[in-house]
Amino acid sequence: MIGVAVVGYGYWGPNLVRNFWETPGARLISVCDLRMDRLATVQTRYPAVDITDDFEEVLRDPRVDAVAIATPAAAHFKLAMKALMAGKHVLVEKPMAATSDEARRMVEEAARRRLVLAVDHTFVHTGAVRKMRELVEDGLGDVYYYDSVRVNLGLFQHDVSVIWDLAVHDLSIMDYVLPERPVAVSATGMSHVAGEPANIAYLNLFFESQLIAHIHVNWLAPVKVRRTLIGGSSKMILYDDLEPSEKIKVYDKGITLNGNPQKNGEKVYQMLVGYRTGDMYAPHLDVAEALGIELRQFIDCIERNEKPVADGNAGLRVVRILEAATQSLAERGRVIELEHMRRIA
Amino acid sequence: MIGVAVVGYGYWGPNLVRNFWETPGARLISVCDLRMDRLATVQTRYPAVDITDDFEEVLRDPRVDAVAIATPAAAHFKLAMKALMAGKHVLVEKPMAATSDEARRMVEEAARRRLVLAVDHTFVHTGAVRKMRELVEDGLGDVYYYDSVRVNLGLFQHDVSVIWDLAVHDLSIMDYVLPERPVAVSATGMSHVAGEPANIAYLNLFFESQLIAHIHVNWLAPVKVRRTLIGGSSKMILYDDLEPSEKIKVYDKGITLNGNPQKNGEKVYQMLVGYRTGDMYAPHLDVAEALGIELRQFIDCIERNEKPVADGNAGLRVVRILEAATQSLAERGRVIELEHMRRIA
Amino acid sequence: MIGVAVVGYGYWGPNLVRNFWETPGARLISVCDLRMDRLATVQTRYPAVDITDDFEEVLRDPRVDAVAIATPAAAHFKLAMKALMAGKHVLVEKPMAATSDEARRMVEEAARRRLVLAVDHTFVHTGAVRKMRELVEDGLGDVYYYDSVRVNLGLFQHDVSVIWDLAVHDLSIMDYVLPERPVAVSATGMSHVAGEPANIAYLNLFFESQLIAHIHVNWLAPVKVRRTLIGGSSKMILYDDLEPSEKIKVYDKGITLNGNPQKNGEKVYQMLVGYRTGDMYAPHLDVAEALGIELRQFIDCIERNEKPVADGNAGLRVVRILEAATQSLAERGRVIELEHMRRIA
Amino acid sequence: MIGVAVVGYGYWGPNLVRNFWETPGARLISVCDLRMDRLATVQTRYPAVDITDDFEEVLRDPRVDAVAIATPAAAHFKLAMKALMAGKHVLVEKPMAATSDEARRMVEEAARRRLVLAVDHTFVHTGAVRKMRELVEDGLGDVYYYDSVRVNLGLFQHDVSVIWDLAVHDLSIMDYVLPERPVAVSATGMSHVAGEPANIAYLNLFFESQLIAHIHVNWLAPVKVRRTLIGGSSKMILYDDLEPSEKIKVYDKGITLNGNPQKNGEKVYQMLVGYRTGDMYAPHLDVAEALGIELRQFIDCIERNEKPVADGNAGLRVVRILEAATQSLAERGRVIELEHMRRIA
Repeated sequence: MIGVAVVGYGYWGPNLVRNFWETPGARLISVCDLRMDRLATVQTRYPAVDITDDFEEVLRDPRVDAVAIATPAAAHFKLAMKALMAGKHVLVEKPMAATSDEARRMVEEAARRRLVLAVDHTFVHTGAVRKMRELVEDGLGDVYYYDSVRVNLGLFQHDVSVIWDLAVHDLSIMDYVLPERPVAVSATGMSHVAGEPANIAYLNLFFESQLIAHIHVNWLAPVKVRRTLIGGSSKMILYDDLEPSEKIKVYDKGITLNGNPQKNGEKVYQMLVGYRTGDMYAPHLDVAEALGIELRQFIDCIERNEKPVADGNAGLRVVRILEAATQSLAERGRVIELEHMRRIA
Repeated sequence: MIGVAVVGYGYWGPNLVRNFWETPGARLISVCDLRMDRLATVQTRYPAVDITDDFEEVLRDPRVDAVAIATPAAAHFKLAMKALMAGKHVLVEKPMAATSDEARRMVEEAARRRLVLAVDHTFVHTGAVRKMRELVEDGLGDVYYYDSVRVNLGLFQHDVSVIWDLAVHDLSIMDYVLPERPVAVSATGMSHVAGEPANIAYLNLFFESQLIAHIHVNWLAPVKVRRTLIGGSSKMILYDDLEPSEKIKVYDKGITLNGNPQKNGEKVYQMLVGYRTGDMYAPHLDVAEALGIELRQFIDCIERNEKPVADGNAGLRVVRILEAATQSLAERGRVIELEHMRRIA
Repeated sequence: MIGVAVVGYGYWGPNLVRNFWETPGARLISVCDLRMDRLATVQTRYPAVDITDDFEEVLRDPRVDAVAIATPAAAHFKLAMKALMAGKHVLVEKPMAATSDEARRMVEEAARRRLVLAVDHTFVHTGAVRKMRELVEDGLGDVYYYDSVRVNLGLFQHDVSVIWDLAVHDLSIMDYVLPERPVAVSATGMSHVAGEPANIAYLNLFFESQLIAHIHVNWLAPVKVRRTLIGGSSKMILYDDLEPSEKIKVYDKGITLNGNPQKNGEKVYQMLVGYRTGDMYAPHLDVAEALGIELRQFIDCIERNEKPVADGNAGLRVVRILEAATQSLAERGRVIELEHMRRIA
Repeated sequence: MIGVAVVGYGYWGPNLVRNFWETPGARLISVCDLRMDRLATVQTRYPAVDITDDFEEVLRDPRVDAVAIATPAAAHFKLAMKALMAGKHVLVEKPMAATSDEARRMVEEAARRRLVLAVDHTFVHTGAVRKMRELVEDGLGDVYYYDSVRVNLGLFQHDVSVIWDLAVHDLSIMDYVLPERPVAVSATGMSHVAGEPANIAYLNLFFESQLIAHIHVNWLAPVKVRRTLIGGSSKMILYDDLEPSEKIKVYDKGITLNGNPQKNGEKVYQMLVGYRTGDMYAPHLDVAEALGIELRQFIDCIERNEKPVADGNAGLRVVRILEAATQSLAERGRVIELEHMRRIA
């Protein structure tokens, strides 16, 4: 049994606690938060679990093998580093850290101590996103574009822009689904509340191949949209996370190219590009709760000394893009190269 | 009665002919095209209308007061200039010309000769787009963003990119609906067919105010989407052109800001930004055919010596943005200033 | 404070417990169920609440003023009667009883003892259904039809047909929303599992006026549908309960009739019937949890000696229709008169 | 070449004329209508086609092999009988006749003279409906139910009820798609305009097997719906005719039954009924214009002396149900037996 402590019992912490409580192989030892009212709630719901407002106490507890950190992002680095230095495995909320430098140091610390460092990219454990990865690996052909829209009304954050709040989901999904890493990013956006971070943003991701990716995030939209299009040379995917059951639709659509075009005029050209319009299908998806799957994998990785699907490097890659996008947005979309991206294995 | 000749009877020309035929005040004199089979079709359907493959003949015909040009865009400049120089009023398809320099010379020529020069920005005559302009003028408050998606499968063009083919619609609508002109543009995109122009593109439009605009166009999408979001400080619009009857939805949604914020911490901030969620309504729209309205206005403008809603300057502004976006796309999204934009009245 | 006991902790009981726990004016005294594992769950979650598998113990408890019954429907009558005879106010799940005779005796017993008897027609406390009643009272004009579709895959019941399981929702909503009571009912349907009750059914409800109502329920549909159309002489409503935010749409559509028609032929007739196509709007709805509102009302009714919105008579009317529809279905749609319906105040 | 005359150039006639004009093997000889303005339109559009307001002239014309009748339904019988007696093959609009007696006499007359009698059940020639028939024949398993909704606002007819106007489409589709004929029908409905026929109606169709069918038609709905559900033991179909491209969705969903159930209690029962939730797919459909396919088949049948897909018997079966449903509606849903249905081959 792996002993687990959850740090932070605000918005997401209760989900971690509830799922760890039911994860085979995990034993929930304690919950740590600075607010007493939250700890009281834990005590009522889980009388068998220790509560504390002292993080050091968690670190000293020899029953605790792993720490799950669900505090505001600004505190991730400090808490995770302390936990790693205390020899604890770490699962940290996304975004993994406030800067890529912090994220890199966390990865290095975990590697040095041979500890598991996982990032809670929850979406990559959903049936829909796993199915997309399968399809991209086998079926889509060459990936031409990845286009995502994630907009709704609220909740405005005052410490981070909409990029860190919403695009982080798309970037973590892309990191998992696409076979290739971006080499540069640009972003534009705007704040409509004086003195606050951008509430609307558009990200472009550049790749070495002919793949192009784009993300639209917006806190100020009248409707909620969660739609991703992935275009491939053989098939195309529409992923609508708001669909209750048919979240993934696979279209046997695209263009067909004549292998030996001779462009003498319009007529010849139009023979060159043809359109393929076949069936659409919506594969049945695993509906198990993503967080449950993720925590089971986290425990397994600790037990077997393996790397989680979303490890520290995945978290680092996402943070690096968020950071570069933020910089680009401030410079009206200047392209920022992601030099080291390919080296982050 | 205003005598009219239609030049070009390919994809769009038949619509012009059919509508001019029924436009009060217009008399359809002749149709000109280089292809005999097309002219034969005209003769069968409209035995009373002259046909010719000689554009000079049209220019010489004293019964022809106005010429409508619906040829491929590359020929617009040459044909329109000849028509203007022959003293004919001109209605020209969009995009108005292949370069902003050509467009500017057309505007100047028409002004010099006091002739009407109209551009066929058909969408601005639809009930939906006219309603949007009304709402933007009165009801939306400050406009925060304009976001449009226009994607589908096909038809790939081989002479112009998806920007000239699809974004031209959004730019002409924006030009009509928004109270402000963009000051700069950037674009990214990609071609997935070797040697061909971009088939997917993203445009950013920058303004002096806090308004931001974005257009996504794509010839290689598995689904057809025609959706525009306009966010304002008081209301927000969703325009879905594929909806059969409720194309425009107006949302009484948004954020409310406390006038005198004192940011001492999260609590105070969250009092600062509130959310307003009121009714939605879909106004009844005029369903008259846009082209019919447009042609009637064109005839009226000639008779009354007035400026059409979409005049040569509107066409020039759109072409200038298309041109700059094309340049930007080739330079991975470099921002191109639109210096003279505000001076084009 | 009104002391409450919840009887039955299966599918719906936990919702009652959770809401009573938070209802001002209510004090949750005990939970009763025959299964020990369920009681253990209650104990863990609500250590302050008594648990028991002995219903008589609940009845004897002087702290218990009211009993909420959420057992299978077959047991409602026996348990509710015992509770009423023990002087307890009663809230009972829908359908209120297995026969209209049982329901009538429950109503009489409660009346005799001046106890509150409420039926848990949860939907009538939703913002959407309350808005529909408002609109029917003021705005819709004469009500022409009420048409509801409630279909999905599962859950097949083996003791009652799809009518008792799904149509009960529509009948309780209709009872609340419409100003008029049906005078007769017919139903058709079919079982596709040998020896089991009907899994698809269609109900017709007849009224004295020109109002007509129809309900389609189905456990064997590939898609989930929850849609109601209400047509009125002035406006029409579309209620789609699966819409996340715009559940109610009000259409200013309909026909207009010439007051003094002289039917001499088609021409005159076509002047007689005109079509009105105005705006649509989706009113903002109260999103408070319906069950919470309902339980607060139940407590208020006890304290103030008032009648609940869905009282025993409402429950009786619904059961009477279910019963008659079941009989009609067995006779291939024979019309069953609902003689006493109007007398059930 | 088969010479064709079209009789009736009102709502549907122009479609017949346009399609016959382009049908290989057909030669459009003449168009007959009582209104001179309509004939003038024909002359302008098709100068090579004769026009006449004298039906007898059509019958006398030896170049005319076949007559297509697109007049109001009340005139179908008289015109078709005359045409058949004059030795002409006949294509007649739906509904084929005003009574089943008329329809039967038309069938007999055509049989006696060995002439082709086709009914214009256009929908059965669409890609969507043909695909449904394929699926019902192979893939759906036992057909459990057929449920159709066809509602919109207008157009009110003053001579026939909504059943004859809208349900005729569903009945003709059902007749083509289902392997079994109904044995009885019942209908309810209502008129909301004094003195006019029913504008809303519900039809139940009974079969010998466990198949059940239901049709909802309504001229007074605020939204347009064209949706059919077909439930089978192996698969289920959703047919939405308003979907631009994915009109047919096939769901691998349903229930699974344990072969040897022993109903000792709830637990055992729940093992008995299981749910199967597999993929959904939307087959690519032939998008050729249905009417074009139909007319080509009509010409082929004449040339090869074959029976059309929708022959006189299909038309008769549909009229018989319309007639019985009308009778049932007048008697508040009394079940009307369709005795001779199975004998109409």
